[in-house]
Amino acid sequence: MDDATTAWTAGGALARMRARAPLVQCITNYVAMTPAANALLALGASPAMVHAPEEVADFVPLCGALTINIGTLSAPWLDGMLRATAAARGAGVPWALDPVANGATPWRREAAARLMEQAPDLVRANASEILSLAGEAATGKGADAGDSVAAAEGAATRLARVSGAVVAVTGAVDFVTDGTRHCRIEGGAPVMTRVTAMGCALTAACGAFLATEEDAFAAATAALAVFGAAGAGAAKGAGGPGSFAPAFLDALAALTPEALDAAQLVGAA
Amino acid sequence: MDDATTAWTAGGALARMRARAPLVQCITNYVAMTPAANALLALGASPAMVHAPEEVADFVPLCGALTINIGTLSAPWLDGMLRATAAARGAGVPWALDPVANGATPWRREAAARLMEQAPDLVRANASEILSLAGEAATGKGADAGDSVAAAEGAATRLARVSGAVVAVTGAVDFVTDGTRHCRIEGGAPVMTRVTAMGCALTAACGAFLATEEDAFAAATAALAVFGAAGAGAAKGAGGPGSFAPAFLDALAALTPEALDAAQLVGAA
Amino acid sequence: MDDATTAWTAGGALARMRARAPLVQCITNYVAMTPAANALLALGASPAMVHAPEEVADFVPLCGALTINIGTLSAPWLDGMLRATAAARGAGVPWALDPVANGATPWRREAAARLMEQAPDLVRANASEILSLAGEAATGKGADAGDSVAAAEGAATRLARVSGAVVAVTGAVDFVTDGTRHCRIEGGAPVMTRVTAMGCALTAACGAFLATEEDAFAAATAALAVFGAAGAGAAKGAGGPGSFAPAFLDALAALTPEALDAAQLVGAA
Repeated sequence: MDDATTAWTAGGALARMRARAPLVQCITNYVAMTPAANALLALGASPAMVHAPEEVADFVPLCGALTINIGTLSAPWLDGMLRATAAARGAGVPWALDPVANGATPWRREAAARLMEQAPDLVRANASEILSLAGEAATGKGADAGDSVAAAEGAATRLARVSGAVVAVTGAVDFVTDGTRHCRIEGGAPVMTRVTAMGCALTAACGAFLATEEDAFAAATAALAVFGAAGAGAAKGAGGPGSFAPAFLDALAALTPEALDAAQLVGAA
Repeated sequence: MDDATTAWTAGGALARMRARAPLVQCITNYVAMTPAANALLALGASPAMVHAPEEVADFVPLCGALTINIGTLSAPWLDGMLRATAAARGAGVPWALDPVANGATPWRREAAARLMEQAPDLVRANASEILSLAGEAATGKGADAGDSVAAAEGAATRLARVSGAVVAVTGAVDFVTDGTRHCRIEGGAPVMTRVTAMGCALTAACGAFLATEEDAFAAATAALAVFGAAGAGAAKGAGGPGSFAPAFLDALAALTPEALDAAQLVGAA
Repeated sequence: MDDATTAWTAGGALARMRARAPLVQCITNYVAMTPAANALLALGASPAMVHAPEEVADFVPLCGALTINIGTLSAPWLDGMLRATAAARGAGVPWALDPVANGATPWRREAAARLMEQAPDLVRANASEILSLAGEAATGKGADAGDSVAAAEGAATRLARVSGAVVAVTGAVDFVTDGTRHCRIEGGAPVMTRVTAMGCALTAACGAFLATEEDAFAAATAALAVFGAAGAGAAKGAGGPGSFAPAFLDALAALTPEALDAAQLVGAA
């Protein structure tokens, strides 16, 4: 990720991901199911939505990565998530956690804590969710952040050090850290906050890159850059949040590695 | 709502709702989850989809309103709905019921009856569903109405008087009653019957206005007027039900209080 | 279906289906719920998404057809599916099975086998899923096929003979067989593989035609021809998978029986 010493670029990661078209298992919320599947398909990956406790342990090893999102959590789904993440650890399948609204209720805090114990490779969330997950004061409501990314950078870095996970905080400008390395990713557009499940779809995209990059920090950076570039491009022609959504999927599909690198969205933090 | 004696307008309600951007908890059906969340976001509110029995009682008090939709009902979800509505009553959070296809099966009738016992502030449904909920003969099939709004006006008025809820019957021309006051709302377009979950999204929008209007009759009227105006506008440029859906979200986001009032969709009944 | 001896055409079937606007009960996966409901509405049918074990037996007899899709299967949903299919058999309601990713795990294989014992009138799947269902080697991953339609034609024919179901294998060129009669359906577009739940929505559309055609072979052929024609048309103007999806729904709604027959997508196999 250090520009001077390696040839790594987000565009290169995009090309590698598309060449393998990884199967990404998403145990995600009901709101995000369709948008996340469409984002993965547009991007060139293959989504699988399998959550039943009876089969997750058999299914996870078939996948390139697993993503877990607790948006519309219930007890049977949490059971499936815990079995799936245990299977991922056992099979060496990388996995990402999206701890939606984890600070909203005691039950949700407990669920997020149990999932953190399963050692995710990556945590992707908004600032309020990261603050809450790190045990610090947050002001989010529901799935929407009440805090700025900048206000969560310290918490994200501490969370990365304690947990061993790469932590990606997304907002107007995103922040990624593994506790030692940090970067910021620009791009996107304000309209993205008016379209549901953009963050959830981004976590699914993180899974696609986790499947094909060795380094979770690189995977997160690539996924965020892809969403930043496609989001900025799609917003230009969109007449509002409704027309943005299909334009965004078109932009994900049309984005070339060259255009992604030319956008220069990834910078030092 | 009496034009001569108050300054209330739907546009004023829209401005107030957007100024507060209320968090609206929706326990809704799987089909409507994504469209309803997108409608709330486009409109300027913040959706939350939380249904687990373990956490609804903790979550409801954080919200400006609660909406319950029984479209894809199951026993565990009914449990969550009953706990959520009880919490809403306890915390003084207004709530709206969307009794989808309540007359279709005995189990569904019983579920709707139990939810009615939780004293919703507002019931939003099509004519067949209102007739059935009021214990009268209806001819709907699934979620689609088989009866006209006009045929359900008497039942709606009686239901409002008996239950204490404001009742909104939606169709080509909508009817709202609290048992004493009545109004009709025009607008919309025939293509809206070819797009799934428009009614469910409307119930979610009713929740946004319940959170910011003291009077449930005013809240329902505002939500119906907003959908009527945005629907009529979006239908003009749409090539069919597919292109209508994103155009409708764009229209919800672009609708100004001034344009809403200028459309003069609310009239006496 | 033999052009020389009958007047049957896909366009005729489309006109008959629209004239009755059948209620089609879909117990489908979470990803497909909204797209499938929208496809049925665009096409002129009426969707119903009812899955609870407590009510499916009461609801099925009200419907023109039932479709079952195991995409995001769980134990309580399988219970609902088995009760619904038993009710369909009892009431003479035709039903279609979409055995998504049935070969992926032992639990899923078992579930698909139990549903096959309920004697579906129609099975609609991709080549890998049909090979797996017929007990032959398959290479699909998740919901995406790894095998060509041509490679599954023999298995499809054998499966139709053994099970008594019409079998529709969909891909670049579709294949339909009842074990004796066979046909191929052209049309569609490559972009359809980049949009989630197209196959699931197609199975729902099969349900609409099962409700109004006596012959399941004719029903499958009509549904596949409709999707082929609408897909090819919608792909022409689409800028990618995002804009394809609403264009496809517009095309479903705009498709006339005459245009469908003029497209001549159905041929001998």
